[in-house]
Amino acid sequence: MSSAQREPKVVVLGGGSWGTTVAAICARRVPTLQWVRSEQTAKDINSHHRNSQYLGDAVILPESLRATNDFSEAAHCADVIVMGVPSHGFRAVLSELAKELRPWVPVVSLVKGLEQGTNMRMSQIVNEVLPGHPAGILAGPNIAREVAEGYAAAAVLAMPDQSLAANLANLFRTKRFRTYTTDDVIGVEMAGALKNVYAIAVGMGYSLGIGENTRAMVMARAVSEMAKMGEAAGGHRDTFAGLAGMGDLIVTCTSQRSRNRHVGEQLGQGKSIDEIIAAMNQVAEGVKAASVIMEFAEQYGLNMPIAREVDGVINHGSTVEQAYRGLVAEKPGHEVHGSGF
Amino acid sequence: MSSAQREPKVVVLGGGSWGTTVAAICARRVPTLQWVRSEQTAKDINSHHRNSQYLGDAVILPESLRATNDFSEAAHCADVIVMGVPSHGFRAVLSELAKELRPWVPVVSLVKGLEQGTNMRMSQIVNEVLPGHPAGILAGPNIAREVAEGYAAAAVLAMPDQSLAANLANLFRTKRFRTYTTDDVIGVEMAGALKNVYAIAVGMGYSLGIGENTRAMVMARAVSEMAKMGEAAGGHRDTFAGLAGMGDLIVTCTSQRSRNRHVGEQLGQGKSIDEIIAAMNQVAEGVKAASVIMEFAEQYGLNMPIAREVDGVINHGSTVEQAYRGLVAEKPGHEVHGSGF
Repeated sequence: MSSAQREPKVVVLGGGSWGTTVAAICARRVPTLQWVRSEQTAKDINSHHRNSQYLGDAVILPESLRATNDFSEAAHCADVIVMGVPSHGFRAVLSELAKELRPWVPVVSLVKGLEQGTNMRMSQIVNEVLPGHPAGILAGPNIAREVAEGYAAAAVLAMPDQSLAANLANLFRTKRFRTYTTDDVIGVEMAGALKNVYAIAVGMGYSLGIGENTRAMVMARAVSEMAKMGEAAGGHRDTFAGLAGMGDLIVTCTSQRSRNRHVGEQLGQGKSIDEIIAAMNQVAEGVKAASVIMEFAEQYGLNMPIAREVDGVINHGSTVEQAYRGLVAEKPGHEVHGSGF
Repeated sequence: MSSAQREPKVVVLGGGSWGTTVAAICARRVPTLQWVRSEQTAKDINSHHRNSQYLGDAVILPESLRATNDFSEAAHCADVIVMGVPSHGFRAVLSELAKELRPWVPVVSLVKGLEQGTNMRMSQIVNEVLPGHPAGILAGPNIAREVAEGYAAAAVLAMPDQSLAANLANLFRTKRFRTYTTDDVIGVEMAGALKNVYAIAVGMGYSLGIGENTRAMVMARAVSEMAKMGEAAGGHRDTFAGLAGMGDLIVTCTSQRSRNRHVGEQLGQGKSIDEIIAAMNQVAEGVKAASVIMEFAEQYGLNMPIAREVDGVINHGSTVEQAYRGLVAEKPGHEVHGSGF
């Protein structure tokens, strides 16, 4: 962007840890306004430059970041919308937005998941509710707290138009946060929706005491399985070997903080899924995604053995031992073109 | 293989931990003879069904596995050769073999590295020294000790002919060792030769206290960088997202036992490469591979930023801090088609 042009104003919707972290990244480059529901959070951001509830007291946000509770104010002034609200509230917020938003304003989703009931990707919802607004997604191996604390990280911004992607990517960059670009919106969204199921599979493996070889095997086969479904949905294979696919899978499978890995470990200790969910105060997206993948698999006529075994344990009474036995009972075929595990 | 046919006799050359582990896998399916240099090791295998020196006393080998010190006996009876000797002795052993081996006998390499001086892949040496013998490679995330102890693992067998690959893969399978097939010999060999350099890069990162996001970023970009060079050398991108690429990289980067990761960590603590090598009693392949990658990069006209920074630290006096600063100074481009880090 040449300095003669007016800088775009970024509006981030949502006050969670990742939405706030992205807002802080944008605020270092351009004017940024964050809409949050909680008055307390808005005050915390505006007066103390912190989001203590989600990022703790140690993370200091840029003074240039402003927060508001006024949805209309936020919607009205936006040149770029960043959607940091969870998937279950995504459509409702977009519908509110439709009444206020100026034309052509691009909408970048931060959501790794599908809409319950419709199984739609977030960019599909944007295309439906806000036709004419370019819809994209920012995703990668990004534990919010680590990014907020200044550890180096990278993400990929997927937009259908590469010139717009290159332009917008500048807003989501700092010295320590590297935003790459791609045109594969479908691939990046599918990777985000699928990977949690595979993190549950690896978590189940941990409970069985699998070795490092076994974990790497499951992760490599997971990337292959995700790529197969992603391609069937219209995405590109390469995306699944990239930051939003393999990169995010590595973090989700190895991090001690991963909710989905935790679910797999608990399943392996013989707990029921209801018990596990009841004991967690956060959602593990992979639990719902397992049955959704099986619907897609049927629709596309694909064999998805890892997802099938995870679905078996979560929804059909299989044990973790049976799941792993089921996987290794299959004879391995061609690494790339084979249809099985 | 139908039961009416004579079973192939597998001959494994080399008495190290991985050669012995693969010999044990084969011996569970078909007659297998292991040639080892050390009389002590041959006796240990034949009398005690152990290779205590390399696999400890707890790993019990199949009684059907026989070892010999007689190279001619081994070479003469082989229907399949498995090359478990290190890269520096590979050509000499093959030249001996050339005098004795029957025609058409396939040669499967277990070696992840290039020949010093010529930078040739092992299958290229086979093609040169033993023309007419199909040459392949077996590789994957396979810490020998874990496989020997019975943890589940997977590998990929690359052979130019897929029918031969499918046939041979049966010899390298057990209930817990899954051998996939591929025709991408070049890709699998390049992945094995390149990945150690990237493990050093991740090891350097550990010493700087990088976060989980950062590690996943470096690994995802490493797969992309390896795939770029692998493709230039004639391999397929998909191989680098598979077991021999990403799979092996995950194990090499995360295992506490990884020599290459260790080298990176020590470099990060300010030690010189000579000091580090002197303190290790085993070779870290990535140390030599760094400069080889830079030769290839020049030859193919490729920008290999991660390898360049590792080479800078090992061979040109850069510090680990400078290496990481050098990487993040580059502006990210298109995730798949961009040429930089």
